[in-house]
Formats: sequence, C-alpha cells, structure tokens
Amino acid sequence: MIIMKKDATLEQITHVIEEIKRLGLRADVIQGEYRSVIGFIGDERKIPFDHFATLPGVKEVVRVERPYKLVSREYGKFFESPHKYRRIKVGNVTIGGSEPIFIAGPCAVESKKQLFRIAEEVKTAGAHILRGGIFKPRSSVHSFQGLGAINQKKAEETLNWLRQAGDMFQMPVVTEIRGEAQVDLVADYVDILQIGARNMYDQDLLTKVARKKKPVLLKRHFGAGIEEFLSFAEYIAAEGNRDIILCERGILPIGKGKEYTRYTLDLAAVPAIQKETYLPVIVDPSHSTGRRDLVFNMSCAAIAAGAAGLMIEVHYDPAEALVDSQQAITSDELKDTIDACLRIHKLMHPKAAKTKATSDEKG
Amino acid sequence: MIIMKKDATLEQITHVIEEIKRLGLRADVIQGEYRSVIGFIGDERKIPFDHFATLPGVKEVVRVERPYKLVSREYGKFFESPHKYRRIKVGNVTIGGSEPIFIAGPCAVESKKQLFRIAEEVKTAGAHILRGGIFKPRSSVHSFQGLGAINQKKAEETLNWLRQAGDMFQMPVVTEIRGEAQVDLVADYVDILQIGARNMYDQDLLTKVARKKKPVLLKRHFGAGIEEFLSFAEYIAAEGNRDIILCERGILPIGKGKEYTRYTLDLAAVPAIQKETYLPVIVDPSHSTGRRDLVFNMSCAAIAAGAAGLMIEVHYDPAEALVDSQQAITSDELKDTIDACLRIHKLMHPKAAKTKATSDEKG
Amino acid sequence: MIIMKKDATLEQITHVIEEIKRLGLRADVIQGEYRSVIGFIGDERKIPFDHFATLPGVKEVVRVERPYKLVSREYGKFFESPHKYRRIKVGNVTIGGSEPIFIAGPCAVESKKQLFRIAEEVKTAGAHILRGGIFKPRSSVHSFQGLGAINQKKAEETLNWLRQAGDMFQMPVVTEIRGEAQVDLVADYVDILQIGARNMYDQDLLTKVARKKKPVLLKRHFGAGIEEFLSFAEYIAAEGNRDIILCERGILPIGKGKEYTRYTLDLAAVPAIQKETYLPVIVDPSHSTGRRDLVFNMSCAAIAAGAAGLMIEVHYDPAEALVDSQQAITSDELKDTIDACLRIHKLMHPKAAKTKATSDEKG
Amino acid sequence: MIIMKKDATLEQITHVIEEIKRLGLRADVIQGEYRSVIGFIGDERKIPFDHFATLPGVKEVVRVERPYKLVSREYGKFFESPHKYRRIKVGNVTIGGSEPIFIAGPCAVESKKQLFRIAEEVKTAGAHILRGGIFKPRSSVHSFQGLGAINQKKAEETLNWLRQAGDMFQMPVVTEIRGEAQVDLVADYVDILQIGARNMYDQDLLTKVARKKKPVLLKRHFGAGIEEFLSFAEYIAAEGNRDIILCERGILPIGKGKEYTRYTLDLAAVPAIQKETYLPVIVDPSHSTGRRDLVFNMSCAAIAAGAAGLMIEVHYDPAEALVDSQQAITSDELKDTIDACLRIHKLMHPKAAKTKATSDEKG
Repeated sequence: MIIMKKDATLEQITHVIEEIKRLGLRADVIQGEYRSVIGFIGDERKIPFDHFATLPGVKEVVRVERPYKLVSREYGKFFESPHKYRRIKVGNVTIGGSEPIFIAGPCAVESKKQLFRIAEEVKTAGAHILRGGIFKPRSSVHSFQGLGAINQKKAEETLNWLRQAGDMFQMPVVTEIRGEAQVDLVADYVDILQIGARNMYDQDLLTKVARKKKPVLLKRHFGAGIEEFLSFAEYIAAEGNRDIILCERGILPIGKGKEYTRYTLDLAAVPAIQKETYLPVIVDPSHSTGRRDLVFNMSCAAIAAGAAGLMIEVHYDPAEALVDSQQAITSDELKDTIDACLRIHKLMHPKAAKTKATSDEKG
Repeated sequence: MIIMKKDATLEQITHVIEEIKRLGLRADVIQGEYRSVIGFIGDERKIPFDHFATLPGVKEVVRVERPYKLVSREYGKFFESPHKYRRIKVGNVTIGGSEPIFIAGPCAVESKKQLFRIAEEVKTAGAHILRGGIFKPRSSVHSFQGLGAINQKKAEETLNWLRQAGDMFQMPVVTEIRGEAQVDLVADYVDILQIGARNMYDQDLLTKVARKKKPVLLKRHFGAGIEEFLSFAEYIAAEGNRDIILCERGILPIGKGKEYTRYTLDLAAVPAIQKETYLPVIVDPSHSTGRRDLVFNMSCAAIAAGAAGLMIEVHYDPAEALVDSQQAITSDELKDTIDACLRIHKLMHPKAAKTKATSDEKG
Repeated sequence: MIIMKKDATLEQITHVIEEIKRLGLRADVIQGEYRSVIGFIGDERKIPFDHFATLPGVKEVVRVERPYKLVSREYGKFFESPHKYRRIKVGNVTIGGSEPIFIAGPCAVESKKQLFRIAEEVKTAGAHILRGGIFKPRSSVHSFQGLGAINQKKAEETLNWLRQAGDMFQMPVVTEIRGEAQVDLVADYVDILQIGARNMYDQDLLTKVARKKKPVLLKRHFGAGIEEFLSFAEYIAAEGNRDIILCERGILPIGKGKEYTRYTLDLAAVPAIQKETYLPVIVDPSHSTGRRDLVFNMSCAAIAAGAAGLMIEVHYDPAEALVDSQQAITSDELKDTIDACLRIHKLMHPKAAKTKATSDEKG
Repeated sequence: MIIMKKDATLEQITHVIEEIKRLGLRADVIQGEYRSVIGFIGDERKIPFDHFATLPGVKEVVRVERPYKLVSREYGKFFESPHKYRRIKVGNVTIGGSEPIFIAGPCAVESKKQLFRIAEEVKTAGAHILRGGIFKPRSSVHSFQGLGAINQKKAEETLNWLRQAGDMFQMPVVTEIRGEAQVDLVADYVDILQIGARNMYDQDLLTKVARKKKPVLLKRHFGAGIEEFLSFAEYIAAEGNRDIILCERGILPIGKGKEYTRYTLDLAAVPAIQKETYLPVIVDPSHSTGRRDLVFNMSCAAIAAGAAGLMIEVHYDPAEALVDSQQAITSDELKDTIDACLRIHKLMHPKAAKTKATSDEKG
C-alpha cells in the first residue's frame, strides 16, 4: 500500500491512481482525516514498488506480506479506530458496536404464516436482525431446496414476505445467495446478503455480491483455515465494499466414531481473527453444533470468546422444521440465550455497557 | 426408482411421468433394452411410494437410501454394463474405456505461443486431451487470475486459442468454469467443462453446466467425503447429463508441522468410488501432491489403484510457469509417465489390452 | 449391566460375580442405596446375557451399546446424582463441585526456585491445584525433555520439590506420567496423575496408572473423537477407579495456510461430553491455543461452555520458559482470568453460587 | 553434526565425544570408509557449535534444522548409499533391498492351529515375514485384547507358537508391543518389534524397544504429519538402532457422511518420506482401507508408489476372524496380490530385477 504525504495534493493522488491503472491493476483509496492511503488490487507480481516510492506526494510504499491486505488491521488503522471492530450500520442496528447483535429466524422460510409468527417471536425475544433461508444449499438434489428454488415467481413472493416481516417487526433482514443468478433479485429485497459456507471459495459470486454495495455476511467454509477465510473476504473488499460480517460456523470434525456435534465450532478463531482484521466476527451455534441442546452453552461461550454477535435458528415447532430440525430452538430458549449473553458481555465489558447506557439516556 | 413391467405401454410410462410431475418433481427416464426405469428427482419427502406401486404398468418401486441414486451402480445396471465404467466419448477419445486416458497441458494458458508449444509436446508424449486454465480460481485477489479474467475479449481470444490448439493437434480440450457467468461462453469453445474442487458444492453452477449437454469433469472438493462427492455429481445427472468424469485431486492434509505434499491424495477413494458408481474416476497427481518429483510415482500408483485416467500439468519451463510452478513436469517426463502407466495398466488388465490390440488391427 | 432386585441377598450378588469371573471376565460392583448394579468388564462376545437374566436375585440385564459403559450417565445414575458431575475430592479441593477449579503452574519445572516462586504466585492469584511438568513429552529427542528425564535421582528431587511446593502453599499437585516406568515413582509424590494427550491411547499405561487409586487427569488426544476419548477413560474405570478428570486440550487444526492457533479448541465437546458421562470435564486453554493473548478469552468461553475447571500454564517470565514459552501467562493475568471466570460461572449458576455462599457461612 | 577431517585421529574423535558428554548430551558416531561423522543427541539449546568447530580434527560443524537428523538422508549419506534405502537384514530376508517384502499373517493369533495353518498358507503364497498379533490395542476394554493379554503364561505360550511357526516355515516373525512391560518378553521370541500407530508418540516405549537392538517396525500414527513420524523414528535412532522400518497405515479421514475407507491411505507419503530418509517405508493396505475388496488395488498402488514392502492381514475364514474381520484376505488373494506387485515392481525397476536375477544365479 502507498502512504501519501500529509500535504499530498489531489493531483498527486490522482496521478498515483492512474499509474496503478496503467499497470492493469485497481486502486483502493482511503482518504483519512490526515492523509490518504492507496492500496493495490490485483496481480502483485506486476507492481514496481520502487517506482511508486519515487512518485510526487508519496511518503512511503509498504508491502503487506499476507494475502489479505485491504481487510487487515494494518491497513484498517488508517481509517478505522485501531482497537475496535468496524461498525456496520444496517437500519437501526450496528454490527461491531458496543453490544452483541442477535440474528434469528427460521432455517428455511416455509410459509408466510410460519415466517411472520417466528419473526414476531424472535423480535419479542430480543433479536435485532431477521434471518430466513429462501435458497437452501443442500447436499442432495432429492432434498427440499427452499421456496426460492421452485420458480422465479415463488422466489419473489418469498423474498417479499421476508421484506414485509422485517418492516413489520422493525428488523433488517438477511438471506443466503447461493448462485450468481440470484444476486440481483435478492439484493432488491434484503438488507444483508449472506454467502454460505459452501460458497466461501466462489470468488465470482463474492465479487458480484460485493458490487451490490450492501453489507455482506460471509460464512467460513468448513475446510478453510483462517488465512483463506480472510483472503476470500478480501475479494469483497477489493470491490470497495468493506461492510463485511465474518461468521464462524464450524469446521470439519476430526476423529473416528460417532459424531457428537455436526461440525467443530472453532471458537478460538474468533479472538484470533479479531487480531488480524477490523471486520466484526459473529458465530453460528446452530449449524456448527447441529444440536438444540448445545445452543445455549455455545452461545454464551461465543460471546465470552469475544464474538460481535450470534446467528441462531428458531422455530416454534423445531421437530417439524423442513430443514435442520435438530438444531432449531424455540423463542423462549432464544430469550434465555440472549439474556445470558448480554449479561456475560456486560460483565466482560463494564465500560462499554456504561457508555451504551448513557447513550440510551441521551437518545 | 420405479421399475416398469416388461410389457408396459408408452401410455403407462407417460402416465407415471405425469404423476411425478404433478407432485412438483422431475422424472429421469431410462428406456432399457427390456424394460423402462424411471427415477424421481427432487424433494423425497413428497413421494407417495405406495401410490406409485399401484399404477398400471409398474412392476415395483425401489427406494435407494443413499443421497446419490441416479449415479449409483444400482440404478446404472439398468442401462450400463454392470462391471464397467460408463464410456464417455469425446471426439476420438473414450473415457472409461479399455485404456487409461491422459489429460495434459499447462496449468494456466499464458500466451498463444506457450499453449501451442505445450500442446504439440503433450500430443507427442502420448496425451489424449488438452487442458489449459483460462479462468483460474485463486486464494488471493492479488494473484494472477488467468487470461480469461482480464476482460471478455481476452477471454474469447484465449478460449479460441485453446480450440485451435485442440483442432490442430487432434485433442479434445477441457478448461475450468469458475462462475455461472462463464458457462455459455466456455461451452461454445471447449469439449469438456471442468468444475474445480472449490466449486464442487456450487449446485447452481453444476446445474447450469450440466444443461450444456457436454461432458463434465467434476473435481472432488478437498473437504468432501465420498458420499458428498457423489451427491453433488447427482446434481449434474439430475439434469439428464450422465457424461460425468469424476476426479480425485487430494483432500486436506492432517497433522502438525511442515507439509510434504500440498494435499493428501486419497487413492483408495478410486476403487471405493468405483464400487458405488458407473462413472469413471480419474486422478490429478499434480495438484494433489504439488510436487513435480512425485508425479511419476503417484501417476503409476493411481493407475495401479484403478484410475480411468490422469490429469497432469505440463510446462516446458516449470520454474517459469505463472501458476503452480512447483508441480508441472516437462513433456519428456510426461512421456515416461504415460509409458509406465500404460505398461502397468496392461499388466493389470491382460484381457482388455488384448481386446484393444485386436480392435486396432481391425481398424 | 446387571440390575439386582432390591431384596437381592449378598449371596445372590456373590453368585453373579462368580459367574462373571468363571467366563474370564471381571465384575464392577455398585452397591447403591436401594439396589446393587453389576457391570461386566471384558470381551463382550463371551457374555450369555440370557443366562444372567435367569440367575436368582437378578431384576434385569441391560445391554449398553456404546463402547463406554462404566463411565456413562446411564450407569452412573445408579451411584451418582444424575444431573451433576462426579465430585472428585483431592485434599481440600473438590473437582466437579459447585465452583470451577483452576489448575495452574509452569509447563515444565525448571528449578526449585522457579517452581516455588510460581507456586506462590498462582496460589495468590486464586489457583486451587499446582501443576508442574517433570517428564515432558516432546516431538524431538533434541529438545529439553524435563528434569525428570535426566536421571532417577534428579526425577526424585524434582518430584520432591513439587510435593513440598504443594504442601507449603496448600495446593494438591499434578504432573504428567509419560511412561509405565514412571508410574510407581510419580504416584509416591503427587495427588493427581496426569495422562497426556499423546498417551491417551496407551491402554497399558492407563491401566497401570488407574491401579494407583489416585485421581487421574486424562487429556483427549488431538486426533480422538469423543467416543474414543470416553472409551479410553473406560480403561481407567475398568480398574475400579472412577476418579477421572477429563481434559479437552485441542484437536488437530483443519485448513491450508498459516495456523493461527496451535490446535483447534473443541469447546462444544465440553457440554457434549457432559451429556454422556458423569465425569467432570476441564479445559486447557494454554496448549490448545498456544497463544498467551488468547488465554483470557478462551478461559471465559470454556467456563461459559460449562467446563468444571481450567488448566493454565503460568510463568513469571513467559518468554524465558524452557518449554512452550509462547503460551504461558503471568500470575497477574491468571488473577484476571480467574476473576472473570468466577463471575461468569456465578452468572450462569445463580443457585449454585447461592448454595456455596450459604455453605461458606456455615463453615 | 560434526564432520571430522579424513586424517582425524582416534584420540581427536574421542576428545570430541567426551566434550559432547560433558555437556550432558550423547554422541552418535559413524565411522565411514573415509571419515568419521559425529551426531549430537539431546537438548540442542545447550550446544556451543562454534566451540566444536575449533576442536582438533574437526573439519566442519553442520546444523541440521529439521527435528529429525540421525535418520535424515543428509546424515545417512555418510554411511548409506545415497540413492537407496538402508538394507535391513532379518534372517534370510532383506528389507529395503532390490525386491519388495511381504509381511503377512493373521491380525490376531487365535489358536496354535489357526496360526500354523495361516503361516503355511502365506508362505506358500510368497510371503517373506510372518505377522501375528498377540497384544492387541483396542478402542474398547470390552473387546478381545489378544491372547497375550489373558495372563503371562498365555502370553509366553502364544509367543512361542509364533516363534515355532516362523521357524517351521522359515519366516522371520513380527508382533506388536503395546506397553513397556511387554518389551523384554516379546524381544525374547520375535525378530522384528512392532510399535503400533497408537503408540507412535510413546517416546519411552520407543526408547525401551530400540535398546533391544532388533529391527523395529514403526507405524505412523493416524494423526501424525510426516515430520512428526520421522521425529519419533529419531527416538529409536538416538539409541543407536538404525534398523527401523517405517509403515504408512492410513491417516484420519476427512469429510462428512458415511466413511468408505477406515482411514485415508496416504500413499504420496511413501515417495515423500523416501526423499527425506534412508529408512525403508512399507504400507499396510489392510488397516488403512479396512476393506478386503480394496486390498489388491491398494497393494499394487503402494508398490507403484515406491513402497519397499507390504503388511497384509490374512485369514482362511475372514468373516470369522476375532479382530478386524472385514479386512483380512485369503491366502489365494494374497498370492494374486504378491504376483501382481512383483510384476509391477519389476516393470518399474528393470535394472534391479536384472541384478537380482544375476545374483540368484550366482547364489
């Protein structure tokens, strides 16, 4: 990345950007309070770092050795407060702010009635954002693929229900985009665009979704190391979209014999990722454990580990859910979970809680 | 699946298919020499198996418990010779036939000159099919993404080179499709459409590629078990496309410390998969090991394990290759590898070799 | 297992035990308040279940399908309170009781001075049990193997230091036994016998250690599933020793690229194991993460997940520690960690905390 | 390691060794044809490399950065022919020689009759070494643990059968040692001492076994990387025992869903390990796949990958075997496997085969 001098002129900045484009690369420009910083995007082998160091207005050229640069804390310190997450605002909700955020709702939208009932329940239980799967990624073509997969008309109708439920209960809404053909349609209806674990490596999908300029919720692939996870978040940032919410949802289990949890929830990844990036990290205790009876404990553990929020599946009749019926909790259980999590968070961040209270009084 | 009586009429078959469609499902119809078999495609929970058993012309309704049904040996026995692979013909080449097939070429197409030089060399060395990466999936947005990623015009030009090289040296050509937006374009130029390991779970991409009615080369994801691998091949078969070439290319390595191979080549998966499906399985010793000095040994081992072919990266100057320079071999090394593999195959299939020889004499 | 009638006579019980021995098996006898229960130990194929069902005094014979039976909740309900952990008393400390237990100390004992200084510090910080490695399992024969490995005399001297430090600061002590030859010696000096992760599968060592009739701390192997973990704990229980403390310490990491934590801490295993067994489960946040800067967060998370205690490495000068210098925390950091953990535990168990307080008042 | 000058005197060599001992380390001395080489064994941090470089008779001091030094090719080139394996002679058999070696026999010795019948059959089928498990490592204390586990007398009797069977059918014999208490006894009866996969990390057992000065067959742990595997072989070499046969037997499987092979056979590890060490590597296709129907293919693949031999479980009635009944093959199948393997080996080593033939004529 190129750090410009404090008194660099707009002309000088423009010149640097043009030089970058001349090489077939793209430029990521941060205009900070005091100085501008310009990041390179694209094939690194082509960059004549020495040449850039001699351009007018350039203070220094810094090489970031990791494959993730634009999302790194090192880069972020030029435009984000260094000790905090990026604050991503969606409607009346701030992800990465002083309080953890709870995303809740059905694994799959099954009907308008089911969605509205669950939406009302999770709102009452304290959730901030409504989730609802419309295009479901499934291991078998012989399983229910979500209402959105039936046809275009049904997809639109279901997306509209989600939009209406969000509006009615004052929650931003999020749903998963499974393929490039769904991007335009989904982006018209929802507030946060989710990339599921299986699509984490799909750089073309990431790029297309990023360009919608809406917050993106990126789930870690179950076979991905942390370096890869951040390197694929970089594909989104490379489109100028820094509103990325990272989500840990479990990695492949190790060991022989019966599996007691569906995946291995890698909670230490939460603080480990936080040290590397300014992007907020949330946790999905539902898919990772695959067990309703572990959601409460692992939610509390996730918040204690430092998660910025949780994504939890809720159903009023878990056993009857069309998808992943073994992991959904009821809204009563959600309320208990949210209450415990908020108390743990408060206990671990006494000052943040205080600030929040004050801010509420003022509001 | 529904097994029709030998004397079932076309009317009866049509009635069964209509009943299936009425439920919102699709039907896969096999008209065998003696009888017809109809497979269900779609959400299994909806199927009233008992109802179908009573329809006129139906002999019996068989439930296949595995998530892969259309690609299973059990289903295949109605239209494939039970003890062999499906024979997939592409131009003058048969994959799954009596001899192993060698797919070779550069990891990434770098220039017309590079492609044509390598194409000529691999043809001379004994390769049957030409590979060349045009859209490269990469872990970093800051790495070379393939010539196809530069712009539409460059993509078309590079695809055209590949087509021309295939025609000039009489080899069918294969390249990877990384995203849905590339499907139409790539299918216009190449003979086999490759889905890379990272996209194996991308069911929307699989479906779109399958509909092109060209052979599909599906690589196993590095985090996928065999059941999942076959379940995603099923997405292709569900579109009526059974020309699927499976490719083992290494799974995630286990254990602490320095990695000596890039991935763990799971060769026992080759005969294990063969027991489950009629689809031919090939092996990629280049990506799996990531080491030029292991390609010869692991190629021989793959053929000994029963692979129907190999996919090998070749470059005249491996150290200078733009992508994966540590794993490409030279065409001289390819020739040695192919020779050894053919001799091992002959040794293990004395009859097949004989048949082939006879057929050659006749030809 | 055999459930005896409430009014079964001692003679009848003895008869059943003799029948078991006659088959070359061993019997595990639980004399509960109301009835006796007898478990089989040994080769299952030999058991004529029907025969035992007909013996006088036998109420019923129950087959436990899992490989772990003696340590299962199902078996434990006959002698343990069903909703709690087994309470393991060591000196003045109760593991599995109403409050989490903190085991702390140096990774390796380096000198008497170092040990006593750290012992005093961790006691002050709130630790209950003192740890100190004397025989260190190491991946390289060219690394420091612990003072105990120098010679027999040095081993005894070092064990004596540990004993003295425990006595002086009123903490039970624990150290790892790496091989069978060390069992007798170590058992003479310490209160809890530790089996390290690498020895978890060493059934001969487990058996020999179990026979010392002292509490055993069994660490989960980094490649072991939960079923295997409990099946090897069963080897200890089969010797009549039920004072087993299970310890989750991280499993093999998954994924390519730089590793950000040394192992993957599998926190969901804590509540998952709790559902299966009455044995208490503790967590080692030091070895699992290998990172000093993650110990606080992961300790809090472990307690929130339901751990019965923690095992933490402490050094006054972490960078200078002879073994695992990157993961030790200072005693100041330990104090903060213990304080936060106790508050989280209290918050999650309001009643337990209350009971404890009352009990303290009485005391 | 210290490379002495060609004309270094015995006095100078002795002086260097004494200096090493003075530091509390041990010395490994290689007296080659032309010069002597001395390796350090023990805690590396203590070595003043510069000091040793100035001692009389010392040519140079070379640091080997890897944790395995004594078993490395780099060290081996001073006493082994650089392009070959170490040749380990046991009775009339040479492991690591010009032909692959086949170790075969029952998973577990069940009776004298069973053992002798299988011994005769595998000899006739072409096996060179007889295997027979007497102390079986098992995941459950409720499974058959081998005849050796019944009592001392039965252990001796069974070991004696193995010895007699080996003598009668002129095959060296190998059996697994599971714990330190068995080392002296087993070493009295068998020719090769096996350390099973689960005990690979058991450095005290490795050391004790190594001191018996008999060849050691060391199996790779299913969670161990190659670096760890070689680092634990180093514990054996550190006792002056270089007769180590390494055995790849499968690592933990990856991926969700039904497992089609018991472990993942890591065949690329064979040539990869060969590049690192002069020790011969063999393969166990029985335990790794856990499937009788895959043994033939994976045996051929192992030889093609460069394995120096195979270890195969054989039973005349596989379904009735007391342990691992799903993976044993019959002796007829063994014969076919050995024949195919020998032909593949000959095909891949035309010169070696020729030499062998000549040598046979001379003999």
